[in-house]
Amino acid sequence: MPKLDTDTLYVGLLGCGVVGSEVVRLLAESRIDFKARSGANLVIKKIAVRDLGAARPGIDKSLFTTDALSIVNDPEIDVVIELMGGIDPARDYLLKALNNGKAVITANKALLARHGDELETASDKADVDFYYEAAVAGAIPIIRPLSESLVGDYVTKIMGIVNGTTNFILTKMFETGADFDVALKEAQALGFAEADPTADVEGFDAAAKAAILATLSFHHTVTDADVYREGITKLTARDIAIAKDMGMVIKLLAIAENIDDEKLSVRVHPTLLPETHPLAAVRGAFNAVFVEAEAAGELMFYGRGAGGVPTASAVLGDLVAIARNLVDGRTAPATSDYASLTIADIGTTHTRYLIRLDVQDKPGVLAGVANTFAANNVSISTVRQTGQEDTAELTVTTHLATEESLANTVKQLNGLEFVKRIASVIRVEGLSA
Amino acid sequence: MPKLDTDTLYVGLLGCGVVGSEVVRLLAESRIDFKARSGANLVIKKIAVRDLGAARPGIDKSLFTTDALSIVNDPEIDVVIELMGGIDPARDYLLKALNNGKAVITANKALLARHGDELETASDKADVDFYYEAAVAGAIPIIRPLSESLVGDYVTKIMGIVNGTTNFILTKMFETGADFDVALKEAQALGFAEADPTADVEGFDAAAKAAILATLSFHHTVTDADVYREGITKLTARDIAIAKDMGMVIKLLAIAENIDDEKLSVRVHPTLLPETHPLAAVRGAFNAVFVEAEAAGELMFYGRGAGGVPTASAVLGDLVAIARNLVDGRTAPATSDYASLTIADIGTTHTRYLIRLDVQDKPGVLAGVANTFAANNVSISTVRQTGQEDTAELTVTTHLATEESLANTVKQLNGLEFVKRIASVIRVEGLSA
Repeated sequence: MPKLDTDTLYVGLLGCGVVGSEVVRLLAESRIDFKARSGANLVIKKIAVRDLGAARPGIDKSLFTTDALSIVNDPEIDVVIELMGGIDPARDYLLKALNNGKAVITANKALLARHGDELETASDKADVDFYYEAAVAGAIPIIRPLSESLVGDYVTKIMGIVNGTTNFILTKMFETGADFDVALKEAQALGFAEADPTADVEGFDAAAKAAILATLSFHHTVTDADVYREGITKLTARDIAIAKDMGMVIKLLAIAENIDDEKLSVRVHPTLLPETHPLAAVRGAFNAVFVEAEAAGELMFYGRGAGGVPTASAVLGDLVAIARNLVDGRTAPATSDYASLTIADIGTTHTRYLIRLDVQDKPGVLAGVANTFAANNVSISTVRQTGQEDTAELTVTTHLATEESLANTVKQLNGLEFVKRIASVIRVEGLSA
Repeated sequence: MPKLDTDTLYVGLLGCGVVGSEVVRLLAESRIDFKARSGANLVIKKIAVRDLGAARPGIDKSLFTTDALSIVNDPEIDVVIELMGGIDPARDYLLKALNNGKAVITANKALLARHGDELETASDKADVDFYYEAAVAGAIPIIRPLSESLVGDYVTKIMGIVNGTTNFILTKMFETGADFDVALKEAQALGFAEADPTADVEGFDAAAKAAILATLSFHHTVTDADVYREGITKLTARDIAIAKDMGMVIKLLAIAENIDDEKLSVRVHPTLLPETHPLAAVRGAFNAVFVEAEAAGELMFYGRGAGGVPTASAVLGDLVAIARNLVDGRTAPATSDYASLTIADIGTTHTRYLIRLDVQDKPGVLAGVANTFAANNVSISTVRQTGQEDTAELTVTTHLATEESLANTVKQLNGLEFVKRIASVIRVEGLSA
């Protein structure tokens, strides 16, 4: 990037919600000597907002504008921080900012998962920094560890609890025995879930983060469209109780896996984990990312995944890093995406499963069920049967099987006259081969 | 740094032990396309060893030399990787390498803790990269997270399990009830402890890492001489059993704490932690670093802290990062050490304590003990008494108190005629205020 020609770096902010207002507050109030750390005075010059009238106590009103373009086109502004969210018009603003030679910081996972490659290309072309530590797992440093610290290693798999809302809900369900709806309402009342919780509970937010993590881990561009996605809305108190009884927990995991150096499986779904797995202990609104690499072995990064203040920490880390670069006229190296991998169809993905089904309690039923698994080449690991009057509940866990074989098994089980219903099918991770 | 003028980057290796031989092997055998990731062919040109005759299967013998100076003075070598350990002559070699304009990677914590500032200054002056991700907690990315990701945040405290040997021993003692000597012998038999275990069990290794972590966290140069240090050799099976009984574990922690933006307390000692603390679950040879920052909140970084292959992962991450910089003619930003802090005397440090003492089992003893604590202004949190014939064992935990008051309390307790002995004094962390 061109060297800063004064000792002041001007920042333009797009959006001033929970995170943006904390960025402004921390820059003004923190005990940190930002000048000493970064080499420049970090000054917020303009803040684009939708509604000039909204109350934003403590922030100088003269900074606000409704004209975001006046920020991305302001020749004096060195760095644009985008915290408005959504794909349009954020994408357009950031492309303009990059093309105008401004460094960009964004926490916008949806935009990155859809158009990250386009933005990276624009930043490379303009020779400016493009940072997004805050986009995945809030305050947890995960972008630099994956794109820099582990760049000399071969990552094989990454599993993350990257959505605080669903982890809060699942933790509640686990701890209190509540059903999904009840736990969701509590999360909403406490501000951990939005009025329309779809993006969180249906896994869209986690899927965007999965795409970003996969891109960095495997040096291959993965978009949100590549991610198989299942939310947590169908999980019941009974599912959680069964898991608990088996010494397991259920987490919504974002998983990205390298299969034979050829394919990537990238998916988000409720997952059973043994309670001894490091991710199992990640409770409430906390996030964690678990990484398996050939040389490093198992790593985990843990912390607060959301919230205005923690997310602002990541944004300010990026801002100081960019300031240091601008002061010296340096641009950070681009991430690499040379790898030629294809996205594995979910049907070909191998995982373990737990299948719970209600059957008639009569002779031959277990044999019929077992035969159906065997006929589809799905090997059973454990079976538990509990009875309630004339219905038996069968809980079957399997060894590794393809999604396709499993789906066929479920379909055939559904067709058996003594099978009353398939109550649930949940994938299992974290068991050794 | 000057831009690489060919597409090949030449590496000189100082030392070819457990880590060095893995660096060579991984560069040759890994599935990673290092050229695609770094922009350059990464070629090891020379390896300095003490004994040319030692067996190093799989490594081309013509690479070896006993003349380390021929590496640091070789004009064709771009990057020197130092894995020989020890302060001299490593310091001299690295200063020469830096002055000769070579980028340097080191895993040498002892050298960094003693002369890190001198080496940083030399690298700044020569405008070359100086990286050391492998020096603390092996494969766990912790250097970049502290020096870059968290650079916009105010770190208040850092607590690390950064020595795998002592964590292995303490885990054994906890799980089997073994005494220190027995657990140490097992660690030695399994290769987790050296024949002379002093550096590990007396906390020297952890103290060096504490100095490095403190320097990065608080933007102030801390050396090993600033670190208060206590090892684990005096811990007994009884200490561990008492901890277990109280729902706690004992870990050797490296702790660095910012006191009122004025002083730093940097220390290594056995520490009681509640079993619910994230660090309590870090077992065996694993490492973890727990960070508290004002905006980010609590973070933890977990993984393998030692071993040839994991440590090589960190070294290769640094090598690819340097290669990317050399390909573009860029030098990474220097870490900042502007802060003006003083090292707190251990006597003024506030912690909680567990004091275990054997006393005569007769009336008035508990009152006498309690009075002694009160007279020294040390507030008691809990007391447990268990009897064995005419001796009672008192286990007292305190609220926050200075080391000095605690030491005075212990001294006075020792002078009481009904006190048979002070069996142990152990600090407690991880409890909320």
